[in-house]
Amino acid sequence: MAQAQKITPRAQDFSAWYNDVIMQAELADYSPVRGCMVIRPNGYGIWELMQRALDDMFKATGHRNAYFPLFIPQSFLAKEAEHVEGFAKEVALVTHTRLKATGKAGAGAVVVDPASALEEPLVVRPTSETIIYAMFAKWIQSYRDLPILMNQWCNIVRWELRTRLFLRTTEFLWQEGHTAHATEAEAEAEARRMLGVYRTFQEEWMAMPVLTGVKTDGEKFAGAVRTYAVEALMQDNKALQAGTSHFLGQNFANAFDVKFQTAAGGLDHVWSTSWGVSTRLIGGLIMTHSDDNGLVCPPRLAPLQVVIVPIWKTDEEMKAVMEVGEAVKGALAKAGVRVHLDGRDTVKPGAKYFEWEARGVPLRLEIGPRDVAQGQAMVARRTGGKAPVKLDGLATTVTAALDEIQALLLARALERREQHSVRGVTKEQLIALMKGDGGFAYGGFCGSGECEAQIKQETGATVRVLPDPEFRSKDQPKTCVWCGKPSVAEAVWAQAY
Amino acid sequence: MAQAQKITPRAQDFSAWYNDVIMQAELADYSPVRGCMVIRPNGYGIWELMQRALDDMFKATGHRNAYFPLFIPQSFLAKEAEHVEGFAKEVALVTHTRLKATGKAGAGAVVVDPASALEEPLVVRPTSETIIYAMFAKWIQSYRDLPILMNQWCNIVRWELRTRLFLRTTEFLWQEGHTAHATEAEAEAEARRMLGVYRTFQEEWMAMPVLTGVKTDGEKFAGAVRTYAVEALMQDNKALQAGTSHFLGQNFANAFDVKFQTAAGGLDHVWSTSWGVSTRLIGGLIMTHSDDNGLVCPPRLAPLQVVIVPIWKTDEEMKAVMEVGEAVKGALAKAGVRVHLDGRDTVKPGAKYFEWEARGVPLRLEIGPRDVAQGQAMVARRTGGKAPVKLDGLATTVTAALDEIQALLLARALERREQHSVRGVTKEQLIALMKGDGGFAYGGFCGSGECEAQIKQETGATVRVLPDPEFRSKDQPKTCVWCGKPSVAEAVWAQAY
Repeated sequence: MAQAQKITPRAQDFSAWYNDVIMQAELADYSPVRGCMVIRPNGYGIWELMQRALDDMFKATGHRNAYFPLFIPQSFLAKEAEHVEGFAKEVALVTHTRLKATGKAGAGAVVVDPASALEEPLVVRPTSETIIYAMFAKWIQSYRDLPILMNQWCNIVRWELRTRLFLRTTEFLWQEGHTAHATEAEAEAEARRMLGVYRTFQEEWMAMPVLTGVKTDGEKFAGAVRTYAVEALMQDNKALQAGTSHFLGQNFANAFDVKFQTAAGGLDHVWSTSWGVSTRLIGGLIMTHSDDNGLVCPPRLAPLQVVIVPIWKTDEEMKAVMEVGEAVKGALAKAGVRVHLDGRDTVKPGAKYFEWEARGVPLRLEIGPRDVAQGQAMVARRTGGKAPVKLDGLATTVTAALDEIQALLLARALERREQHSVRGVTKEQLIALMKGDGGFAYGGFCGSGECEAQIKQETGATVRVLPDPEFRSKDQPKTCVWCGKPSVAEAVWAQAY
Repeated sequence: MAQAQKITPRAQDFSAWYNDVIMQAELADYSPVRGCMVIRPNGYGIWELMQRALDDMFKATGHRNAYFPLFIPQSFLAKEAEHVEGFAKEVALVTHTRLKATGKAGAGAVVVDPASALEEPLVVRPTSETIIYAMFAKWIQSYRDLPILMNQWCNIVRWELRTRLFLRTTEFLWQEGHTAHATEAEAEAEARRMLGVYRTFQEEWMAMPVLTGVKTDGEKFAGAVRTYAVEALMQDNKALQAGTSHFLGQNFANAFDVKFQTAAGGLDHVWSTSWGVSTRLIGGLIMTHSDDNGLVCPPRLAPLQVVIVPIWKTDEEMKAVMEVGEAVKGALAKAGVRVHLDGRDTVKPGAKYFEWEARGVPLRLEIGPRDVAQGQAMVARRTGGKAPVKLDGLATTVTAALDEIQALLLARALERREQHSVRGVTKEQLIALMKGDGGFAYGGFCGSGECEAQIKQETGATVRVLPDPEFRSKDQPKTCVWCGKPSVAEAVWAQAY
């Protein structure tokens, strides 16, 4: 049950607010294992809806799910040089396979049995390219076997030093798409297509507007030729990388010798991609929409879209309002609305409002004896506003209200992002912005790692993306914000999670 | 692509047949990691349908999904004495968190960094009771917080020495339900309810008849008071434990001090259950229905229910049959049938039949120029039989045929099981049966571990369950099959996977 504990206001401490929202809504909890979280049913319900929506989109674009092993032999990780360098310092390593009794009782009853040491330690997957390419090498012989379009939903472990619920945890859940193609152009188109799928999902389902673009070499995935990303701006004006799609070229195909006979009769290495989003998206959803009263959840991803709170004083009134409540619940459920009737008699209506508000339920229907008499319900929106609505045709009204809330949340988030996007920044403006409110800063970039590093050092900001055409400024900058040399591309800087 | 390789007949070598069916249908493959398998899209598609059906049943009985950490501190496992004893010898242990460079190139480029040793090693979950009870202790204060009805879908690792695809692998996928209740009776009813859910799923979806009953103390889950199980008989007359549901009493609540304030104002430990089924079910499905031509998949769990194979010689014919094929595909998809049109022009119809048969697609529609002219398709059932069917109203015919195949598979499996069930066995019959064809042997049991051990030693058979009333023999045995002392319960013996 939610504790009647106050949520720290965003303006006071954004980070404390974020944790309070999660705890009050019972989305997740800290576990006894360092850096690992427990995703509670209220949070997991959001993840299930995200999975369903994304999975449908992956399947509609021709992908099929599979499952590859959790463990990767240590030597596999080493086959792609950049890849191992990127992950070596944050991997969980399985080295033994038995515990032995110490003769003590309780917690100290067992220790690792040194006689059970593995010949080759196993890495708990920090991502699955290496194990998947070992299998691709076995499965792919001819151009007829291509393309291979696979995805897997699984858990991932990266030994992070500083963790935050949903945003950065030692273990997290994600999907990773892995595809192999006969040509460079096909692989490039696939990486782009999946970036588009992420954007569509994040805008249409999460109501979270995103920028798309390409990462600089310093920010790309270890082993990729190019990394594309979707980036969103949170309410504290920090950026959240909300998904990446990598064009891997032939890097992993070379490392794992994944060759195929071409239609022309030659032999070539496959061209490939990988792409993923994770439970981090739940953190993005929270930080995009929620307020000082708790979670605000976009209706399409809300495990509960409507809660009905009956109000009564006498037993007779209870009978009447519960009866109407049940009928309304039935009608809404029939219309495909995820609805709950909160008939608890140990909790007062006001406390129920407070609780469901903190949990982010988009619509609350209050039904009291007077409402019953008038054939109506009071409909309160989580995004603000309360009005009586006729019970006749309620399902239609409710469905329309949910659509309006979904659209409103996207519009609000977009407006906020634009208010905190500054185009054509100068060096001084960039520094001032990052010292001040933060946000997305658009400016010219010479492309050098030196400027990138200096900017990060002095402002804490990194290049989030070199934005795609539809996000670029009308007046393209001609010189680098930092060094003044010619700009090779417009860049978007922000401090980031 | 399926290799045109022969499947070993069941009668020749059942074990080789089983592997051949999996390889030909591309359900799974061996991975480079000892004992870990890759579940390929054709196999994972079956798992997704199983998950969807079970998950709906879990939710309909009030359960909600959550996610708990992959890692369990070594000391947690040790808190429940029987539990640690049951799992200590088959756990993957994470002891370090970094790799370091050796200066060599390629596979030997990294080794475990000894400086990254964890203070307390972590166990990769072999089951999650311990970590979940640590959280229950935090979440449960009052009887108002009960019952807690949770489930999680996840991966599990048990370091098995002898592994077989799907049936016993080092890593496998499963669901584990965990519930906490205020009373013993409620927990007992829950354990029973979920056993019933498994039975319903296995009979109605997998078309796999099962026995239900309770395990003997020697076969129960490490830490349970009682283990209930569903047991099925495979085509080689060996038993497969297809799911278990445990009444845990207060064992884990005691070990993790999960207490609650009772309605009466006292303090008590919660009563709990856990229950699970795994990807092993896919092995059960294969071994229940498949034949010497490959996989036979019950329609309700078939990722593809219908494949349309167009037949043509000339380009003109191709155009005509493909057009009808597309129309039929559209009509079937609209009716909710999972259908594929195999329009490949590089593969001959006969080879397509062979391939889809090996993959277990329940219905094949052949459409040639003559069929087009006559407004019909030839419908071939994977379970045998082929007949022309009018294209008018085809969706209805197809849906009915799929239902018939589903029912036929259950009836066949049930008939086979009953043919290989012997009731009221004597000691000599039990020995002869287990040396011969195998099967389920029903007989009296004195309840002693000694008899159980001797029977296992001499016949290789174990008590699968002490069957529930609906499976018991009309004439209840009065004496133990083995020692002749009074029987305390009828038992069902079989050799098992």
